[in-house]
Amino acid sequence: MKYCFGVDIGGTTVKMGLLDAEGNIIDKWEITTDTSEEGRAILPDIAASVENKIAEHQLDKSDILGIGAGVPAPVTSEGVVNGSANLGWNYKEVKRELEELTGLKAVIGNDANVAALGEMWKGGGLGQRNLIMVTLGTGVGGGVIIDGRILVGENGAGGEIGHLCVNYEENDRCGCGNRGCLEQYASATGIVRLAKKKLGQELRPTSLNKEDVTAKDVFDAVKEGDEVAKEIAVEFGRYLGYALANLAAVIDPAVIVIGGGVSKAGEVLIPYIEEPYVERAFFANKKVKFVLATLGNDAGIYGAAKLVLDS
Amino acid sequence: MKYCFGVDIGGTTVKMGLLDAEGNIIDKWEITTDTSEEGRAILPDIAASVENKIAEHQLDKSDILGIGAGVPAPVTSEGVVNGSANLGWNYKEVKRELEELTGLKAVIGNDANVAALGEMWKGGGLGQRNLIMVTLGTGVGGGVIIDGRILVGENGAGGEIGHLCVNYEENDRCGCGNRGCLEQYASATGIVRLAKKKLGQELRPTSLNKEDVTAKDVFDAVKEGDEVAKEIAVEFGRYLGYALANLAAVIDPAVIVIGGGVSKAGEVLIPYIEEPYVERAFFANKKVKFVLATLGNDAGIYGAAKLVLDS
Repeated sequence: MKYCFGVDIGGTTVKMGLLDAEGNIIDKWEITTDTSEEGRAILPDIAASVENKIAEHQLDKSDILGIGAGVPAPVTSEGVVNGSANLGWNYKEVKRELEELTGLKAVIGNDANVAALGEMWKGGGLGQRNLIMVTLGTGVGGGVIIDGRILVGENGAGGEIGHLCVNYEENDRCGCGNRGCLEQYASATGIVRLAKKKLGQELRPTSLNKEDVTAKDVFDAVKEGDEVAKEIAVEFGRYLGYALANLAAVIDPAVIVIGGGVSKAGEVLIPYIEEPYVERAFFANKKVKFVLATLGNDAGIYGAAKLVLDS
Repeated sequence: MKYCFGVDIGGTTVKMGLLDAEGNIIDKWEITTDTSEEGRAILPDIAASVENKIAEHQLDKSDILGIGAGVPAPVTSEGVVNGSANLGWNYKEVKRELEELTGLKAVIGNDANVAALGEMWKGGGLGQRNLIMVTLGTGVGGGVIIDGRILVGENGAGGEIGHLCVNYEENDRCGCGNRGCLEQYASATGIVRLAKKKLGQELRPTSLNKEDVTAKDVFDAVKEGDEVAKEIAVEFGRYLGYALANLAAVIDPAVIVIGGGVSKAGEVLIPYIEEPYVERAFFANKKVKFVLATLGNDAGIYGAAKLVLDS
């Protein structure tokens, strides 16, 4: 049996998995991300952890196909990162360094793109080859899979779904510097923003009238039948559904996977996104399937392993 | 030397080329598209023409790598068309039929996508691997090339750039049934529509005040310094530039190629598109190059040949 490592490098922890070639997770663990001194210890720490696991499981190095890794930054097709704020990295030849440190083949991708690949392989997009994944977390990330492969793009910046402009009338700025990005309406923080605007001019009773309302509060209230919360969900869903309809006209996906913290609200989310999507989609794309991500925090490990197996 | 055929099947004529494996056109000709009886003669006519050319050039059939063909319809990755209004076709297994008729390998693609591939190989996108092409003709077509390959999509409907919604306030319907599609503003007919709206409420003198104003008239007037025409061009460019900025956030192209009849206006077009693009593009995508298509009606022949050579 052949094996590979799937690694999801985050700003706080590195999630790591040892998988067999069929994609079964044999072992799963985490190490701390040491972002000090421009994150110079991150790759050596990963390499040491890989060596330990090979010894622990008494594996022969020749049976290891390689290491896949997802990184919170654009990654070029050569495995180069031109800076990652979360990790402290400036220019870094991630693929080359990791290969030199481990003696194993390394394949590197952007973390959101890699998670999308994982969901295609083992998660909500199982069995599909053309997929859009949108990750609704603190921000809005995403990944596009075309014919089974990640859309990497010229600068490794493919799939930046969160920065589609969905409102040309917006006055507030997105973190990226533009105005009207999807992230300003469909991320957890974006939903809170929509909620606060709504609540500021709302006279009806609602369970959302409290300090520090969260995206989770909004969808919990939706489930309770709260009319104000439902209207916030409609607004969220319209921005997201319209953006996905535009994207689908060009990507022509079989399935759209909704992931990230906001997706923990569950199936209640889907109609709020799907209805405006269908209203606006090009006729060839109206029948796209909407599904929730199923792999949670393991999506990155699976996707990173798949990167190696496909290489 | 090895050879291949590149075929661009249109509703009026079939443009055909015999190319060598380096992409030099050895011979180029056209046959009439016989759309009678559900277009049943189209593929046999192409096969007969191919046989004639092989004989005429005294080629050995074993030196022919195959036939590539672009079709005015979505084409699945299996080379199947589910209907083409322009050709009269209903469901048609184009790849299988053409292979049976000729005894040669056939590779089939959507015509706009195939033209994009041609422009990447031999035209405005020469040397690039990640490209968006937008074709401004009677409608707005397009093609997306990712890492050197056409983005086909699940239903063969990838790259339908003309049906991105760019104006959610639009009341008029697009031919596709939706409202606010890019095609309604950036096609030749869309530009005429913008011009007529503008001229209906315009008091300044302009050379455009005549019957049957065309998109060519608009850009000719722009070149003469006509202020009204310039404002129409600004509106056209804003819709197109904003749409391309959104698309680039997901596709991350190296170059955007502007083709189709409207692009015959020349370099004067580019700043009208590029300026709003840069204003709205995600920071990673601001440096995209804008170029004009250079292959004209031959883009489809080149792209179809490339389909074969890449297969």
